[in-house]
Formats: sequence, structure tokens, C-alpha cells
Amino acid sequence: MIGKVYLIGAGPGDPELLTRKAWRLLQTADVILHDELVSPDILALAPFHAQVFNVGKRCGRKLVTQQEINFLMVSSAQSGFAVVRLKSGDPQVFARLGEEIEALRAAGIDFEIVPGVTAACAAAASAGIPLTDRRLASDLVFLTGHRASDRSSGQGWGRLSARATVVVYMPGSNYQELAKQLCQAGLGPDTPCLIVASASRPDEQRHLTTIEHLSQASLRLAPSVLIVGAVAALARSPADEPHCLQSEGIESEVIYAH
Amino acid sequence: MIGKVYLIGAGPGDPELLTRKAWRLLQTADVILHDELVSPDILALAPFHAQVFNVGKRCGRKLVTQQEINFLMVSSAQSGFAVVRLKSGDPQVFARLGEEIEALRAAGIDFEIVPGVTAACAAAASAGIPLTDRRLASDLVFLTGHRASDRSSGQGWGRLSARATVVVYMPGSNYQELAKQLCQAGLGPDTPCLIVASASRPDEQRHLTTIEHLSQASLRLAPSVLIVGAVAALARSPADEPHCLQSEGIESEVIYAH
Repeated sequence: MIGKVYLIGAGPGDPELLTRKAWRLLQTADVILHDELVSPDILALAPFHAQVFNVGKRCGRKLVTQQEINFLMVSSAQSGFAVVRLKSGDPQVFARLGEEIEALRAAGIDFEIVPGVTAACAAAASAGIPLTDRRLASDLVFLTGHRASDRSSGQGWGRLSARATVVVYMPGSNYQELAKQLCQAGLGPDTPCLIVASASRPDEQRHLTTIEHLSQASLRLAPSVLIVGAVAALARSPADEPHCLQSEGIESEVIYAH
Repeated sequence: MIGKVYLIGAGPGDPELLTRKAWRLLQTADVILHDELVSPDILALAPFHAQVFNVGKRCGRKLVTQQEINFLMVSSAQSGFAVVRLKSGDPQVFARLGEEIEALRAAGIDFEIVPGVTAACAAAASAGIPLTDRRLASDLVFLTGHRASDRSSGQGWGRLSARATVVVYMPGSNYQELAKQLCQAGLGPDTPCLIVASASRPDEQRHLTTIEHLSQASLRLAPSVLIVGAVAALARSPADEPHCLQSEGIESEVIYAH
């Protein structure tokens, strides 16, 4: 009997933000192929017999190629195993899912996608802000940081609307370049920016600033997202914080720039 | 003792796509204020003693005003209750969360946002497609349908990139107007469009077409989203479908136009 591959979103890190379906499938997996960013608390759910492989990047370097990941998925399923391909956040957002689906289809392997809580939603939830607001931000745009600096493709971000909330996934640590790209895309230097690192994890940190002052931000932890737009300025102030976070048992440092 | 308000995303409808945190908080809620689209299977998790109010729209008409919802949340929390404000999908995406947070802050009520699986991710998962793909769609844009037709604001969607996947939330049933707006925003008439109605629910339906043929689509069920862009064309073909869906016990009708 041929196995099946479950392409699962692990959410932002807090095991309670896994879906019930992800939780169930993880506990019955034979083989788990996970990205670097999936938290140890979540991997601890794997059953004793499961083979668990880290196929993610380390320090930006990919130790296992996409082709090798595809091979592992396909051959494990062909051996009759229930295979979980575990990606942080939602597997359909900036996670190279397309290439993996293509490989599974080519090999005739049955698969199912289990959506998860994407990083933008997790980050905004921690900060206590909406991502859209009919008075402030009518559209929502997700971009990646590395594309901004990808001059080889000749494609920048195009024009961004001041009526949109823009969330930059994988913003990297070159905030000066990011700020430049955001301005070139048409956003004003006083546009609020909120960096959220390790959303929902014990080491979560947030930093509220503006595009103009972004390059001075000291918060350069990964994984992080950058939320840009009027809604960012609604982020919880430090005064709100201790009570809300204490009650959830999360220690969180909030840094407010200028 | 003053209570607390949990602003929770219920996900797309399948109770297994609730997060574990949402599941836990629902089962210990004293008061639940839910939107119309939250599925009965999820509401069935409410404890016996909980007061459950439907504060959503019916047939597009709001029976309870935003002010009344805010009053119910605040007064229930002030009475010492654990209040769950349950929204379908993710509460931060097109769900008027900003107004509710404002009311809670003004009244000094402690609150917490529990993110959920947003409709775009659920719809793409059912269709077996990624939302971004480095070869096809480098950006992801979420818009609402009613804004396209909101001429009073004088704001259309602006320019959309052919390199983006565009997801239209609440597309409504005027597909002719939607197609016109998508073309006016710069997308070609042959751009693939996938309508996904009731994603993850037993009555889920999908319809693959193009902007040009969108107005002929007969699928007008709510809740739905419209996924526009090259990734839409990767949606599972009917031949893939029976096996995948049977194995999960979901009955799903797939309609493929032209």
C-alpha cells in the first residue's frame, strides 16, 4: 500500500496554535520532514517510532536540497509510510510548496494540505492589532524581504498603497535597504513599522518604529516579520503588556523606538 | 473580578482546523458572541452553561450593530465572565477587529487575540495549490469584493501585479463587476480564477475559470473567496479529486468551466 503525504502548517511556534488536524496527523506520522523554524515543542509531539528529519536551512545555508526533500517525501510515501512535511506558519505562503506538490503529482503520490496560522496573523495577534481596518487599511499585502534586494530579477515590489497593510516576511537584517525599498515603493518615511520576532514563542520581541528610523532598530532576531502601515501604530503599549502577557505565561520584551 | 475577552479565529469551518488554543478557550467560555459564518459544529463545543449569541449579519443585514456587540463584550467582561468573540477565519483579516479592540481598550478590558486559519489559506489547501510560488507569484494580496464596487469612496483596487496572487474575500455574486475591476486593475482577461465556496466544509465547491469567463460562473454560494493568478490554474483536476476527498470523508463537487 502506498502512503500519503500531509503538507502541514505548524503555525508560528506555540504548540497551542497548531490546528487540531495538524496535532492529530503529527501524532500518527511515520516520517516527519520539518523546516528549521518548527519549534522543538511541536516536534516533541512526534510518536516514538517516527523518523524525524530536519530538512531546513541553517544560518541561511540549505543542507538538504529541494530535490533531496522531494525524493525523501516520495520514497517514504512509496514505502507505505504516512509522511508529514512540516513547515512553519502556513505551508502555502512563501514556503516552496509548489515545487513539492509538483514532485508528488509527478510520482502519483496522494497528498493533502493542512493550512496553518501564517506568521503575519500570529505577529499581529501578539501585538494586539488588526491587519486590516476599514478606516485605516483596506488591503493586505504579503511580500518577502529577499525579493526587495533581488536586483538580478530586475523586479522590485512595484507600487504599494498607503491604504494597505504590508507585511514583509523574512525581512532579513538589512533594515536600511528595506527602508529604501519601502520608500521607493511609494510609502512615506513616517509610515509606522512593527518588527515582530519569534511571534507566540517564549522569546518573542517587538519593536515599533517608522520607515525613517527602521535602520536604527536593534531587533534582528529570526524568525521575524515586519508589519508596515497605519495599523502597526496601534500595537500594545508597554503599559498594557505585563498584565496581558503574564496571564499567558509568556515573557516578552517590548522595545519602543524614539 | 473583571473578566477577559478572547478575540478568536474559528478558521474556515472544519472543527479540526480550529487551533488547540481556540478549542480550549471555547470550552471554558461563559459568553460566546459569534459571527453568522461560524459553523454549527464549532458552536457545539460551547459548554452547557455558556450564553451563546449570534451577532452576525443575516442575508447581508446586520441585526446587531457594532456598538451593541461592543457593549455586550464590555459588559459581559465587566460582569466577570470569560468572553469569546468568535469570528470565522482569522479575526485580524477583514473582520472589523479594530473597532472592537478600541472599545475594549477604552473600557480597560483585558483582551487577547487568538489567530486562526484565514479563508485564503483554507481555500488554497482544499484546491491543492500554493498561494505563492517563486516561479509564478512572488507577492500575495488580499482584497475585499465590496470595496471594488464602492464607488462612493472613489477608491478602486489600484494596480495589481501579474506576479501576485490576488485573493478577493467576500467577492459577492456580481462576477461581471468583479471581472471588470480585475481588468481595470491591470490583470489580463486570461488570468486564471478559482472560486472556492465553503472551504473545508461538507458543502465545499470549487470552480476554475478565467477573468474573461468569470461572469458565466454559476457558483455563487457564500462564504467564498476568489483566488486570481497563475497558481489558481494548478488546482486539483476532477480526476485527482474523488480519491483525495473520499479518504477524508468530505463530499465535494468540483465544477470546471470551459
